[in-house]
Amino acid sequence: MKVIVFRLGHRISRDHRISTHCGLVARALGADGIVYSGDQDQAILDSVTRVREDWGGKFSVAYEKSWKKVVKDYKRKGYTIVHLTMYGMPVQKKLSGLRRKGKLLVVVGGEKVPWEMYEMADFNVAVTSQPHSEIAALAVFLDRIFFSKELDKKFSRAKKTVIPQERGKKVIGK
Amino acid sequence: MKVIVFRLGHRISRDHRISTHCGLVARALGADGIVYSGDQDQAILDSVTRVREDWGGKFSVAYEKSWKKVVKDYKRKGYTIVHLTMYGMPVQKKLSGLRRKGKLLVVVGGEKVPWEMYEMADFNVAVTSQPHSEIAALAVFLDRIFFSKELDKKFSRAKKTVIPQERGKKVIGK
Repeated sequence: MKVIVFRLGHRISRDHRISTHCGLVARALGADGIVYSGDQDQAILDSVTRVREDWGGKFSVAYEKSWKKVVKDYKRKGYTIVHLTMYGMPVQKKLSGLRRKGKLLVVVGGEKVPWEMYEMADFNVAVTSQPHSEIAALAVFLDRIFFSKELDKKFSRAKKTVIPQERGKKVIGK
Repeated sequence: MKVIVFRLGHRISRDHRISTHCGLVARALGADGIVYSGDQDQAILDSVTRVREDWGGKFSVAYEKSWKKVVKDYKRKGYTIVHLTMYGMPVQKKLSGLRRKGKLLVVVGGEKVPWEMYEMADFNVAVTSQPHSEIAALAVFLDRIFFSKELDKKFSRAKKTVIPQERGKKVIGK
């Protein structure tokens, strides 16, 4: 299964850490890449790319000004568009159907998602109908789609690797 | 099972949204409350409390200046202290043991976690050994501890409730 995360409507002034977290979560929890739209913000792309360089694995990082173009391009490439929103249908009822799709574009909105996004999505899906966090919704969605198998993912060509410890920190590499 | 989330080392200048998200995720994904330490920040407590007032359910929100006092107090009350850190042992190997504990204090750090936290924790647990997001780590941890059953949680006395939709938004209440 191929999964690309699409972070909609990034705002350079307010969303730096939230949008960076979206990129890092996408990578750590098994997605193949992230696309950002909204304000162009090289610092975000650089932060996520730097983590990939240090910690390994394949993960694409891209920016595209027009969110509609991203959605249309991925539809054309055969991706199913899944929009994560607290107003959508419960994720737990949609997972088994979504796992049968080969390719997903997982759309993660910010505070103001354009109405047309709800229309253009193939599925509007809620990780609870409660207000919480787009980062958390993305994390639970990826973990469920991959049956937690992403937790054992190996990252190729890593410069740095954590050796898990009961106490303290151990990192090998530079 | 009783679960309290403990957000360590909140910084008023930098962490507003991240710490708010921690509180909202804790509530939405089935924890019983959150305690903040670090900078005292009434705005965070108010944001999370306001969401509880509007969207219902029981959920405690508290602040305590000394993080060590929080850990000691909860230990004394019989809680098992689980510190989420990318340097810890893989969560997938620890879940079944943790589910048998009756009460968990789930510690979510920021960028600088004091060394003693690793020592005082009963378990240092990693949601992947990759750098990503404390919000995501918390979300996956809660979802796994509760076997995703929290996704169906009902929130009592809610003023607002989402009615899930395939397209668009429907909220009842005021």
